[in-house]
Amino acid sequence: MDVMEAIKTRRSVRKFEDKPVEKEKIDLLLRAAMQAPSAHNEQPWEFIVVENKETLEKLSEADKYTTAMKNGTLAIVCVTDEKYFFSNTNIWMQDLSAASENILLEAVELGLGATWIAITPLEDRMAYIKDLFQLPDGVIAFNMIIIGYPAKVKGFEDRFKPERVHYEQW
Amino acid sequence: MDVMEAIKTRRSVRKFEDKPVEKEKIDLLLRAAMQAPSAHNEQPWEFIVVENKETLEKLSEADKYTTAMKNGTLAIVCVTDEKYFFSNTNIWMQDLSAASENILLEAVELGLGATWIAITPLEDRMAYIKDLFQLPDGVIAFNMIIIGYPAKVKGFEDRFKPERVHYEQW
Repeated sequence: MDVMEAIKTRRSVRKFEDKPVEKEKIDLLLRAAMQAPSAHNEQPWEFIVVENKETLEKLSEADKYTTAMKNGTLAIVCVTDEKYFFSNTNIWMQDLSAASENILLEAVELGLGATWIAITPLEDRMAYIKDLFQLPDGVIAFNMIIIGYPAKVKGFEDRFKPERVHYEQW
Repeated sequence: MDVMEAIKTRRSVRKFEDKPVEKEKIDLLLRAAMQAPSAHNEQPWEFIVVENKETLEKLSEADKYTTAMKNGTLAIVCVTDEKYFFSNTNIWMQDLSAASENILLEAVELGLGATWIAITPLEDRMAYIKDLFQLPDGVIAFNMIIIGYPAKVKGFEDRFKPERVHYEQW
């Protein structure tokens, strides 16, 4: 699938078929994530792959806005570890965001749907997920992406706004 | 071009041919950016398109690590405005990162090369860019992406690290 087609048809999907994501597709999603650009090519990411229904249910209970987490068959929790930090600026959030967007677009190519649910910088969610996975100090959960075969394919919604573009100056 | 092929062949490109990027391609890059996901679908982004050689030169002088900015024929400076902020958490950085990654991947599809150069959260760069474009209070420059026809096409570099993947638990 063309890049632009994937970008245009990517929508947040929160309802899924009861059909597991094949191992080969999980592997491709992780490969897509790890090819992302990162500051100083630090690649400051790790990933927790969750298919266990009980854990997906627990992820959905982080707060009232995370309920979609139980609907999918697969979640990828994107995590960083301070040990990768070259500097103490928070550019790692940009790196993990690029990796996450790669996952979302590759999901579209594979016929999957997904939704990116933030963890950082929401302190209550961060504490809940840290406790759930017993993450050691210095390990920070960034976001959780719920994935699966979409129950319904949403159409293209044009978000282009020409007034948001400035030429040469503000 | 397939999504995975674009993800795999995307590399940071800092040397470019002396050939302008066509208006149609600039439009596609901006459309790709604005289709990105964002928290609460806020779309908290604006873009400054720079082709003027003198301005590219000035962008390159932000500090000693931004010199590549003068090599391209096009820069897109991704900007946010506090007026879009639904909440005061800094999730906008994630939204603008997703938009930036869309630009990088669409650039590959269009035969272009690009490099993402951070502005936020580096205070000196933020101040320099704010001054250069005379950005009003509340308008924050996030990053600048230098773009052009690559002088040399770099090959695929496999960044997959299986040890970065955890299954079901940390």
